[in-house]
Amino acid sequence: MSPEEARARFADARVARLATADAAGRPHLVPIAFVVVGDTIYSVVDAKPKRTRALRRLANVRANPAVSLLVDHWDEEDWNRLWWARADGHGRVIDPDDAEGRRAVELLRERYPRQRADGEVLAVAVERWSGWAASAGDS
Amino acid sequence: MSPEEARARFADARVARLATADAAGRPHLVPIAFVVVGDTIYSVVDAKPKRTRALRRLANVRANPAVSLLVDHWDEEDWNRLWWARADGHGRVIDPDDAEGRRAVELLRERYPRQRADGEVLAVAVERWSGWAASAGDS
Repeated sequence: MSPEEARARFADARVARLATADAAGRPHLVPIAFVVVGDTIYSVVDAKPKRTRALRRLANVRANPAVSLLVDHWDEEDWNRLWWARADGHGRVIDPDDAEGRRAVELLRERYPRQRADGEVLAVAVERWSGWAASAGDS
Repeated sequence: MSPEEARARFADARVARLATADAAGRPHLVPIAFVVVGDTIYSVVDAKPKRTRALRRLANVRANPAVSLLVDHWDEEDWNRLWWARADGHGRVIDPDDAEGRRAVELLRERYPRQRADGEVLAVAVERWSGWAASAGDS
């Protein structure tokens, strides 16, 4: 799968999984709602900023900015329809009151009207989009 | 969510996401088919053993056995139905011709008749099952 197609499939998905790792290299994994703007993926934590200081994903990104995000399509009936797309890059934690943070929260509210999230924003600068589709052959 | 419920929800799911990290702490993420036996999660790589020596997930586990796996349920219409379950533990790479590896491949073939996988087996000893459900309140 080309990087362009991986990016397009990723951007269209509704849920992604975010992998971070702490300073010792222990991975941590959570599902996230997100929005893609160019080669940046934004997400926002659901809790208040005071509490989010302690959130593992944010503590990890502060200690070790390397992150990986995945979207995938599962089809029980037809394994030829399986695909996934991955974004590898570096994360930054942004204040939701900064201009970039405010814009990200606006875009996330447009995309997910049900999400009530006002915590800190995670911005991931994607350095590599990649993917795989069963119909395209071997992984 | 109790560890028992997280384990039960995880075990029932059909696809999980596996996060590993290399020796430098860079996370890597792939979707996997899997089977849970007690507190061990087995998966098998689709390619031939010769090729799988180079597979990132296996190279990572050999360099850094800490892994995290996630299953999640997304519901576009009702965010009160969202939930996820996570397994944190340590991975080992097993030869598919060892007794434990053969048993894992058998169980995976029963669970996923469509999967044609005969590569090395990843066994994850789960040290912590955890999870979250929207209907149960705050994360």
